[in-house]
Amino acid sequence: MKKSLSRICLPAVLLAAALPAVADVPVANRAITQAEVLAAQQGWCQALLDIGAAHAQGGRAAAKALAEKVIDTAYGYQLGPVLFKPTLTVAPQTFRTTKAGALAYFVGGDPAFPKDEGFALKGWTRCEISNSALFIAGDSASTQGNVSFTGKDGKVTTVDKTWSYVKDDAGRLRIVVHHSSLPNTPR
Amino acid sequence: MKKSLSRICLPAVLLAAALPAVADVPVANRAITQAEVLAAQQGWCQALLDIGAAHAQGGRAAAKALAEKVIDTAYGYQLGPVLFKPTLTVAPQTFRTTKAGALAYFVGGDPAFPKDEGFALKGWTRCEISNSALFIAGDSASTQGNVSFTGKDGKVTTVDKTWSYVKDDAGRLRIVVHHSSLPNTPR
Amino acid sequence: MKKSLSRICLPAVLLAAALPAVADVPVANRAITQAEVLAAQQGWCQALLDIGAAHAQGGRAAAKALAEKVIDTAYGYQLGPVLFKPTLTVAPQTFRTTKAGALAYFVGGDPAFPKDEGFALKGWTRCEISNSALFIAGDSASTQGNVSFTGKDGKVTTVDKTWSYVKDDAGRLRIVVHHSSLPNTPR
Amino acid sequence: MKKSLSRICLPAVLLAAALPAVADVPVANRAITQAEVLAAQQGWCQALLDIGAAHAQGGRAAAKALAEKVIDTAYGYQLGPVLFKPTLTVAPQTFRTTKAGALAYFVGGDPAFPKDEGFALKGWTRCEISNSALFIAGDSASTQGNVSFTGKDGKVTTVDKTWSYVKDDAGRLRIVVHHSSLPNTPR
Repeated sequence: MKKSLSRICLPAVLLAAALPAVADVPVANRAITQAEVLAAQQGWCQALLDIGAAHAQGGRAAAKALAEKVIDTAYGYQLGPVLFKPTLTVAPQTFRTTKAGALAYFVGGDPAFPKDEGFALKGWTRCEISNSALFIAGDSASTQGNVSFTGKDGKVTTVDKTWSYVKDDAGRLRIVVHHSSLPNTPR
Repeated sequence: MKKSLSRICLPAVLLAAALPAVADVPVANRAITQAEVLAAQQGWCQALLDIGAAHAQGGRAAAKALAEKVIDTAYGYQLGPVLFKPTLTVAPQTFRTTKAGALAYFVGGDPAFPKDEGFALKGWTRCEISNSALFIAGDSASTQGNVSFTGKDGKVTTVDKTWSYVKDDAGRLRIVVHHSSLPNTPR
Repeated sequence: MKKSLSRICLPAVLLAAALPAVADVPVANRAITQAEVLAAQQGWCQALLDIGAAHAQGGRAAAKALAEKVIDTAYGYQLGPVLFKPTLTVAPQTFRTTKAGALAYFVGGDPAFPKDEGFALKGWTRCEISNSALFIAGDSASTQGNVSFTGKDGKVTTVDKTWSYVKDDAGRLRIVVHHSSLPNTPR
Repeated sequence: MKKSLSRICLPAVLLAAALPAVADVPVANRAITQAEVLAAQQGWCQALLDIGAAHAQGGRAAAKALAEKVIDTAYGYQLGPVLFKPTLTVAPQTFRTTKAGALAYFVGGDPAFPKDEGFALKGWTRCEISNSALFIAGDSASTQGNVSFTGKDGKVTTVDKTWSYVKDDAGRLRIVVHHSSLPNTPR
């Protein structure tokens, strides 16, 4: 999305198609738009950095409190199991269908998930998304592409990532599928 | 939707929200937008007038040929039964779940539907839509409101009308629910 | 749906297709099934009779309290405007996009809707549904057909009715489209 | 899904809830069921083995002809870009949004995708699915879990896999998201 400060002039009749067309008719809209998907992706990146910042300032307790809030608002655990395969998990705890499993992955410190170190606590300084393609099915929408995390030392880790969202009754997108993996490295 | 010939100038940054946001990423979009719904409604009105014009020029055969094309492109009979309750049908043929029943309603002349006179052949000169509200569910969308038909004599007939659409694989909205009724007249 | 008290025996392998197939895998299911639609329809009829019974026992106040509860649980006014065209309303209050408008229609007594007498207070003794067809779009589902109401005097009133439902986050079907009309009576 | 040859007897009234409930009413059903998802998964495994068998008998040309048919019927490239991250691809060709990219992955031999050896030609003798969870959104459905491939030498390769399906106009599930990755191996 390239932004510019210049002004663009369009015939009003063309513009009408892009702007809300029936201003005075009440509309309920449960469909998912491309703009909503892109905003949800950015929100995930921002939340990851925010949890890291909370950790730097208030330690794991602060990070955990924020992570819990993030999971409650950005994931769909209220709606059922979430199909979440984080980047760094290993069997037999590869998949995190519960909120507890997601929380452990992001902030660690849960004896029930002993191998989790806390992905959000690694001190990431940037999180950037590069989509390969989007598929908006109507009431759900999926993205696939790369997400790149910049560490404190400037090193960039890039993962392959798929997200799927549904829109909840309040109109908020929630992640219900999340598959993340390190790039395949042929031997 | 008021149109004007004047030009409207907007900061490009505002406009960006309305235009496709990720120009170079392929996107499949099966969600239904408000603009698509309004265009489908206008298409229905125009098709009704077109069938009437075909009738005036080429008689019922021409009207029937066009009506068949319209039903094939605007209704969802390929997808299954359509929930169609036209304005003027009576029991036991109130509901027209098949294409044959829809065609008979619009152009008449089918001995299997002896009471159908051909709603599209009544010489309508205008067809105007006034929505009460829209509900976009994601992969389906519904409208409810009034549709007003102006006859050759200038008399206006207004009906209460509900339409629901789904988007087919080719990206086209198709009517899968259509309930039309004359206003209730209390005795 | 015909019920019988006899027992039906099927090979277990056939039965498996109808029963939950992956018993130990968590499943979130936001799709709408035919059985859910039929149950929601029956629930509407039962609620109408229940409001009438509350009226007979406790007067309009009791009927109103129950009707409010019914609207809150069976309609989708929490999700946005509902596309509701009741059988007996007249312009300019034909469409009831708000909960207040729906409540007035069912129990009357609201000076803002002076022509509403309270459809649920008419003493109906039976409410029967005869579907013409169903269209399940995935996250929404629509029905169309007749609903017949039997009055205290045994007289039956039959209407043409369309309902559309969506499933809310709690898994409950909610009516978001409701178009009801008396049969067309050709002059 | 455990099958048994014994017969199970249920009261008809219970059974009615599981069997089609309105036998004589036409129903269009675009929702996705759990059974359809499980069948689509099995179909993918079977197709993989079938392409391998075609290769063994008729060489790469035969495998390619079958793979093309499989992609045309099981994936959603007709509907737009498919979000496909195969197990073994590497940057800059990690994601296969086009049919050509999918075909190259399965059978290799395409100079435009020089690193593809043909995953389906590796002589797999078994393909088994173990789901972690399912999320059925209505008009789309997702699965996540493990898929295990047994090689000619009996060695089992297990991958983490996410699939999402939509139902096309003909009622067929099509894969529109596919993310597969080798298990994370902590260093």
